[in-house]
Amino acid sequence: MRPAAGKTATLFKDTPLALDGGAMLSPVTVGYETYGTLNGARSNAILICHALTGDQYVASDHPITGKPGWWERIVGPGKLIDTDRYFVICSNVLGSCLGTTGPWEENPATGKPWGTDFPVITIRDMVRVQAALLDHLNVESLMAVIGGSMGGMQVLEWIATYPDRLHAAVMLATAARHTAQNIAFHEVGRQAIMADPNWQDGRYYDTGARPEKGLAVARMTAHITYLSEDALTAKFGRNLQGREAVSFGFDADFQVESYLRHQGSTFVDRFDANSYLYVTRALDYLDIAGRHGGRLSDAFKGASHVRCCVISFTSDWLYPTIENKRIVHALNAAGVPVSFAEIEAAHGHDSFLLDVPEMDHMLKGFIAAAARTRGLTGGTGA
Amino acid sequence: MRPAAGKTATLFKDTPLALDGGAMLSPVTVGYETYGTLNGARSNAILICHALTGDQYVASDHPITGKPGWWERIVGPGKLIDTDRYFVICSNVLGSCLGTTGPWEENPATGKPWGTDFPVITIRDMVRVQAALLDHLNVESLMAVIGGSMGGMQVLEWIATYPDRLHAAVMLATAARHTAQNIAFHEVGRQAIMADPNWQDGRYYDTGARPEKGLAVARMTAHITYLSEDALTAKFGRNLQGREAVSFGFDADFQVESYLRHQGSTFVDRFDANSYLYVTRALDYLDIAGRHGGRLSDAFKGASHVRCCVISFTSDWLYPTIENKRIVHALNAAGVPVSFAEIEAAHGHDSFLLDVPEMDHMLKGFIAAAARTRGLTGGTGA
Repeated sequence: MRPAAGKTATLFKDTPLALDGGAMLSPVTVGYETYGTLNGARSNAILICHALTGDQYVASDHPITGKPGWWERIVGPGKLIDTDRYFVICSNVLGSCLGTTGPWEENPATGKPWGTDFPVITIRDMVRVQAALLDHLNVESLMAVIGGSMGGMQVLEWIATYPDRLHAAVMLATAARHTAQNIAFHEVGRQAIMADPNWQDGRYYDTGARPEKGLAVARMTAHITYLSEDALTAKFGRNLQGREAVSFGFDADFQVESYLRHQGSTFVDRFDANSYLYVTRALDYLDIAGRHGGRLSDAFKGASHVRCCVISFTSDWLYPTIENKRIVHALNAAGVPVSFAEIEAAHGHDSFLLDVPEMDHMLKGFIAAAARTRGLTGGTGA
Repeated sequence: MRPAAGKTATLFKDTPLALDGGAMLSPVTVGYETYGTLNGARSNAILICHALTGDQYVASDHPITGKPGWWERIVGPGKLIDTDRYFVICSNVLGSCLGTTGPWEENPATGKPWGTDFPVITIRDMVRVQAALLDHLNVESLMAVIGGSMGGMQVLEWIATYPDRLHAAVMLATAARHTAQNIAFHEVGRQAIMADPNWQDGRYYDTGARPEKGLAVARMTAHITYLSEDALTAKFGRNLQGREAVSFGFDADFQVESYLRHQGSTFVDRFDANSYLYVTRALDYLDIAGRHGGRLSDAFKGASHVRCCVISFTSDWLYPTIENKRIVHALNAAGVPVSFAEIEAAHGHDSFLLDVPEMDHMLKGFIAAAARTRGLTGGTGA
């Protein structure tokens, strides 16, 4: 059964959502969470955009896994993004599987789950849905939009598409386009899913079988790209898993094998294989400069009033500093104010989710300044 | 049907091969090729060791694909490794699938293919079989043993295990152990194969079904690690495959997707999925220092007379320069003469198979000097 989300909103009931791919969607349901309270001036809203397999549970327990929110270290009462002070919104992206319209949801035309009849969507389509959710929540403009990885790509599309609704924007460990290597890793994951006979051309929802093995392999492959080689070496090296010597067999002799298998097998409990196809496709299609004759800066022409912050991590080889710097250069070229730091962190791409004091320091200062320039007073800020 | 190899030798008929894992194998068939003629002094033999999915067809057409030998650029009459001058031997490794004993071959105890009853083997086991093949060919000692990637690991085991049979040794783009990241990528490939229901616990040979989809995914994953990100970008970037715009579907829109799918689908025609499990496992188990209390140099104590050459490539992220340097340092510490170069090459790990003039230059000089010090005269040499 499709998991139930906390809050949901049904949008695009009267006017359908026109997708980049040409299809129309109506209605669109959005699963979301909010933390804190919108102030009277409606000026203290922060939208947090989640990554590929993330969700709206940024600061509260996940309804399936029971685990704490994925950014509770940062978001909550008295925390860096202080929900006593700000109204924080996070919504499940279009195409995903935790309350928002996606391949798992019923196709109104057939009364059955969409499966692969669901239209292919883009990062900009995800952002269009978020904008409609803000309308629904009576939030005209955001104090800040913040995201890492695919979340950062949504932030870029916010800057490109709805600059007038933004005061500030933070992008962590991200890129404005997918490289050939990025696409290659995702394609392997998709092929693993589609190779699983339980995938059944995407029409598996009513069959009692799901392509769990294929999805687990996809997750394992992707997971390697989230960690640096040094982090894997430091964490696991060639350590054996609960044994004195190798088994001369195909069990998980090495801790790193056991860890990856665990990543794969737990992932399938909380994520839908078709959603994985759609969301990775949206990532691969991202090429903001491509829409502007190859000039990324042209995408940001209307955003010279948006205070931006870009953070990359030294050991991130998925979206390395050079890709983050392309964004910074384009923002600069468009006259958009931008703070940038490449932060020394050993853990690879996932550093943005981890305890990196230098990142916290930069985020704290940037958000305090954004609040100040937004005219918000009170609270501790920086 | 199991493909027929050219030359084969049946070894270990009377005395079984004692494997590192404790099992005994008897007999062991070896598929091999030779090029050139052994001289009267039996001093001009060169053993070439192939990589993970390579084979003995180093300088002649592959019997399945019909393609030229995998190192014909280097090996042949008048070429850098001149078969008018040297007697070149290359054999299919133990556990592989082109004429040498492996999971596809008949288990004498059952009369059926071994499948996953085949014992897990190591790189040193592969080398033991090569040493027995040399006995069979009446080659007591080698002028040189040469190999790249997994071939280089076999060279390392030659230096460690049979130093007295070596005059010189060349290792390209290799490592003396697999890192956690190396193991992780292989584990994903193995899981992809084992997730394929056609794998049938490895007992698929007589079923008319083979785990081709799983093997293709394994190959695609590994293939990404053979190329540098820059090479992928230069070769494919975000270029589309035979279309003007993305399809908003799951076809191979991007050239890199089409390329990877092709790599996967052609691989299954020439390689066996169980062999892929066994050979990757042998790679993951490699840890020469581990056998010597963590001191790699101790493995090379008997090799101070072996002239060694180690070559790494700047863009190789599978077995990067740092892993090659570990070998160089250990050889130095053991008093083994070693030439080392990190060569600027853009193509990643596969550079050792490609046209890299600086590599050719170094190889040519090294082989000429090895021949000279071996007392071989005539020919052009360097």
